[in-house]
Amino acid sequence: MDKILRINMSGANGPEINTVSLGEYKGLGGRAMTSTIVAKEVPPTCHALSAENKLVIAPGLLSGSAAAMSGRISVGCKSPLTGGIKEANSGGQPSQVLARLGYAAIVLEGKPKDDTLYKVVITKDDVSISPANELKMHGNYDLVEKMKTQYGDKIACISIGQAGEMKLGAASIAFTDMELRPTRHAGRGGVGAVMGAKGVKVIVLDDTGTAMRQPKNPDAFKEANKAFVAGLRKHPVTGQGLPAYGTNVLTNVVNEAGGYPTFNFKQGQFEGASKISGEAQAELENTRGGEGSATHGCHRGCVIRCSGTFFDKNGRFVTKQPEYETVWAHGGNCGIDDLDAIALIDRMDDDFGVDTIEMGATIAVAMDAGLAKFGDAEAAIRLVKEVGQGTPLGRILGSGAAVTGRVFGVERIPVVKGQSMPAYDPRAVQGMGVTYATTTMGADHTAGYAVTANLLSVGGTVDPLKPQGQVELSRNLQIATTAIDATGMCLFIAFAILDQPDTFQSLIDLINGFTGLSMTADDVTNLGKSILIHERNFNKAAGLTAAHDRLPDYFKNEPLSPHKITFNVSDEELDQVFNF
Amino acid sequence: MDKILRINMSGANGPEINTVSLGEYKGLGGRAMTSTIVAKEVPPTCHALSAENKLVIAPGLLSGSAAAMSGRISVGCKSPLTGGIKEANSGGQPSQVLARLGYAAIVLEGKPKDDTLYKVVITKDDVSISPANELKMHGNYDLVEKMKTQYGDKIACISIGQAGEMKLGAASIAFTDMELRPTRHAGRGGVGAVMGAKGVKVIVLDDTGTAMRQPKNPDAFKEANKAFVAGLRKHPVTGQGLPAYGTNVLTNVVNEAGGYPTFNFKQGQFEGASKISGEAQAELENTRGGEGSATHGCHRGCVIRCSGTFFDKNGRFVTKQPEYETVWAHGGNCGIDDLDAIALIDRMDDDFGVDTIEMGATIAVAMDAGLAKFGDAEAAIRLVKEVGQGTPLGRILGSGAAVTGRVFGVERIPVVKGQSMPAYDPRAVQGMGVTYATTTMGADHTAGYAVTANLLSVGGTVDPLKPQGQVELSRNLQIATTAIDATGMCLFIAFAILDQPDTFQSLIDLINGFTGLSMTADDVTNLGKSILIHERNFNKAAGLTAAHDRLPDYFKNEPLSPHKITFNVSDEELDQVFNF
Repeated sequence: MDKILRINMSGANGPEINTVSLGEYKGLGGRAMTSTIVAKEVPPTCHALSAENKLVIAPGLLSGSAAAMSGRISVGCKSPLTGGIKEANSGGQPSQVLARLGYAAIVLEGKPKDDTLYKVVITKDDVSISPANELKMHGNYDLVEKMKTQYGDKIACISIGQAGEMKLGAASIAFTDMELRPTRHAGRGGVGAVMGAKGVKVIVLDDTGTAMRQPKNPDAFKEANKAFVAGLRKHPVTGQGLPAYGTNVLTNVVNEAGGYPTFNFKQGQFEGASKISGEAQAELENTRGGEGSATHGCHRGCVIRCSGTFFDKNGRFVTKQPEYETVWAHGGNCGIDDLDAIALIDRMDDDFGVDTIEMGATIAVAMDAGLAKFGDAEAAIRLVKEVGQGTPLGRILGSGAAVTGRVFGVERIPVVKGQSMPAYDPRAVQGMGVTYATTTMGADHTAGYAVTANLLSVGGTVDPLKPQGQVELSRNLQIATTAIDATGMCLFIAFAILDQPDTFQSLIDLINGFTGLSMTADDVTNLGKSILIHERNFNKAAGLTAAHDRLPDYFKNEPLSPHKITFNVSDEELDQVFNF
Repeated sequence: MDKILRINMSGANGPEINTVSLGEYKGLGGRAMTSTIVAKEVPPTCHALSAENKLVIAPGLLSGSAAAMSGRISVGCKSPLTGGIKEANSGGQPSQVLARLGYAAIVLEGKPKDDTLYKVVITKDDVSISPANELKMHGNYDLVEKMKTQYGDKIACISIGQAGEMKLGAASIAFTDMELRPTRHAGRGGVGAVMGAKGVKVIVLDDTGTAMRQPKNPDAFKEANKAFVAGLRKHPVTGQGLPAYGTNVLTNVVNEAGGYPTFNFKQGQFEGASKISGEAQAELENTRGGEGSATHGCHRGCVIRCSGTFFDKNGRFVTKQPEYETVWAHGGNCGIDDLDAIALIDRMDDDFGVDTIEMGATIAVAMDAGLAKFGDAEAAIRLVKEVGQGTPLGRILGSGAAVTGRVFGVERIPVVKGQSMPAYDPRAVQGMGVTYATTTMGADHTAGYAVTANLLSVGGTVDPLKPQGQVELSRNLQIATTAIDATGMCLFIAFAILDQPDTFQSLIDLINGFTGLSMTADDVTNLGKSILIHERNFNKAAGLTAAHDRLPDYFKNEPLSPHKITFNVSDEELDQVFNF
């Protein structure tokens, strides 16, 4: 990881490939890399689809090494959805592969002169870019199949579906998983639209002939990794809950807590929750069996293994095991309690390349607009299908909840900075409300996952229904998360490192063993803070102010059942989140 | 004008009518009234379609009196298009009528519980509101015909078409003209969507039995009015250009100057300009003849008489004489040089209730997106038709240029604060660029009409292609305009009062004669400043910052032919506009 691949799509004679040294970006990975490049090189006021925007794809600091859980990848740009800076994070294979190929980042710059669509192929010895108009308006699944046929099954792919080509606000970037399927996505913020605006359909990676990245201090690294893995296995969430049920283990937990947004954030509990819970999903998957139905990792080196495979009743592959957020977005939030329908929509989302959270929130808004009835799974499927077809209605929906709300005159739109809220009602999980409101990313759960102390008694306990302590909780989580997002580590390690000081220490030892540095916990915190400051400054210059660090007014006025509670962290408190 | 009519649409047993005294709003008219009420009573962060927003309709300070040109009316609210405060201004009869009925403002508040549509009828003795679901999805023309049948032809109407009912961002509010046709519109900022959200289809006004409002000092008033009218008749613009050709007299002027935005702001001159100029239009109208084809006023008491009537080749009424901005928006900006097509679209816009500027800018963006070819009038007609039909595509287009750009992934969107620029390219008329960027209203020409000194040598001369002097010019015009918008005076008086100090003095005498006050020129300036400060504060609290007081980046990067010039007033200078 000693170089950056820059592809200038504006080149006079077509795209120009430049491999450059790291320079001032040396030592950065993941979100630290993407946010630093974007903050330094992208004019904050530019149009997100313009030549001035850049799409940065960066493996984490530890990606490509033997460090467990280090396969996350960051995608950064100015977001067409939020108008601010964006880091969207994904699992899948490309992070490890790209890191092994030696690239600390791919930067797509400029804009092609015409509507030619390009394909990038990166191997150990070569980088090429060539027109690939024959791939136009392919879904991710078809596309990856074609790449497999052409380049063999040792590849990993980074690609966009129809939504990215149409430059829609909900468009994601797909990353292939260990089964070479386009199931993992940098979902949020419309990053796929930026890749579409750059005219790049797919980046094919082949790390044949490369080796694992070697640590500076192999013994310390190896020992730290062992302790780190043991710590993950010991913690009940990372060692038991997630491996057994996947992320969807949360459905019953959040629903019980009255924080499960139902019918477009109108109530905090869903009657059909148990039918779509992780437990029900695991039972269904176990009954149906099929290869890969047991939980497994989304990338090499994962030891939590919260992923799985969803087969239909005839044993045919449908999609990866839908994640909690997806099951909520297309399930409870739309009043749908049918796992097969949800899985089918998940497959469609992955194929068209749209964020499942944004799409689910959008369908619920469309239901509020009267386009379909809550609970009508067939109608939801029909609506999502329109996105792939690129009809006017499909383009509206694919532009996300905020645009859909505007086009259909709906008032209750659960977005912050234009991005849809995920699966925790901020009134019943007020720490999440603080994160939604204040993160640089627009409403986002991963940015500062206060569900930990609010509902799971992980890393302490903070009453989810009271404002007290939420700002501090969210602040600390946002800082820690930002640092983790720089390492390439899966965020789920947070459960163990928040609760087990020795596991946190082994993470630091792992970083130090790999890099040869002597970082302390404070250094990690300072890294998180410095990235956040870059991001905040970008957003400020782009026009995002304190007024944008707010939830929509109705969360402050409309009490949520069953707790009959409103969001009551004050504006003044929200403005203290970045006071560090 | 000693009372305010407040209608609370949220009433437990249906809408509640309250007539209240002026209280703290005493002495305010027009924009001073609307902006003060909105700034005081509407939470800046509320959703524009929510119960918390208010729609304020206010005649000017002099409306309903014998003062010439005093028939403008202001509509205020939080704008669904810009997210900031809005004052949209219209001609037509309702200002005079409402003022004679004694109302200084109508305030629509709250939100109905269901989707019942209401009709308000105001006479000398009574105000009533009743369900009128039979009027749902009527165009303004049909609607007004029905009202005429029901209430006679002495009425004036304030209404929304289909677009307002659908709560679209480009939705206008129609005001009937002297011929009782819905041809005058408070067009900008989506005020019609707010009326739609309030569930009010039409306000029928009947001033039978009322008298003209009487001045405090009749002799001084009468004398001032005489001098004022003489001043207007003496000035070449208000005495000759506008009466002869209407506002469309500008087409040749602006095109000559290279500031006529053509093909979605891609060049500054349009080859077909002469075919759609005011001169060509007047010739066509004169040839075709028909009742009212000569120019006349849009309201009682107008002496400039820039309005007219457009008949088709068979002598059938089509629409009022399309205004310069409309002819540009649906003409040159879309590459269309066919006055009949433009007139037909103008009629459709008025009927559906959409802002012609926003719609024209939107169609041009749609053309850039490939939905139609520039110059294809039939396609443009088809696209606008979709708006009235409320198809998904129609709803996209009716939501304005910014939303259309997002849905179709178009990068070059000529908006500021989400509102489309009017008919002067800010690169070739840099003073207008300053106004577009900085006005509290989103891109708007009337807010500070720098065309005066930039192109017309009215009120001085400032080189349109240079940044020097533009900030001061725009600042002074914005202050003066805001004050004029409070009086109910047509903005076109500005030509005469800018050039003729004695005409300016007679305006002040007119105000003093009417109100019994002793205002000075400084007082008028201070009134303008104080309203602007209210508006700026509202916008700031709503989240609009210096970053929103900017033109889209491409105006700074993309040179405009024929002058090969970019917008080059610096950000630092723009930030000085409100430094007073």
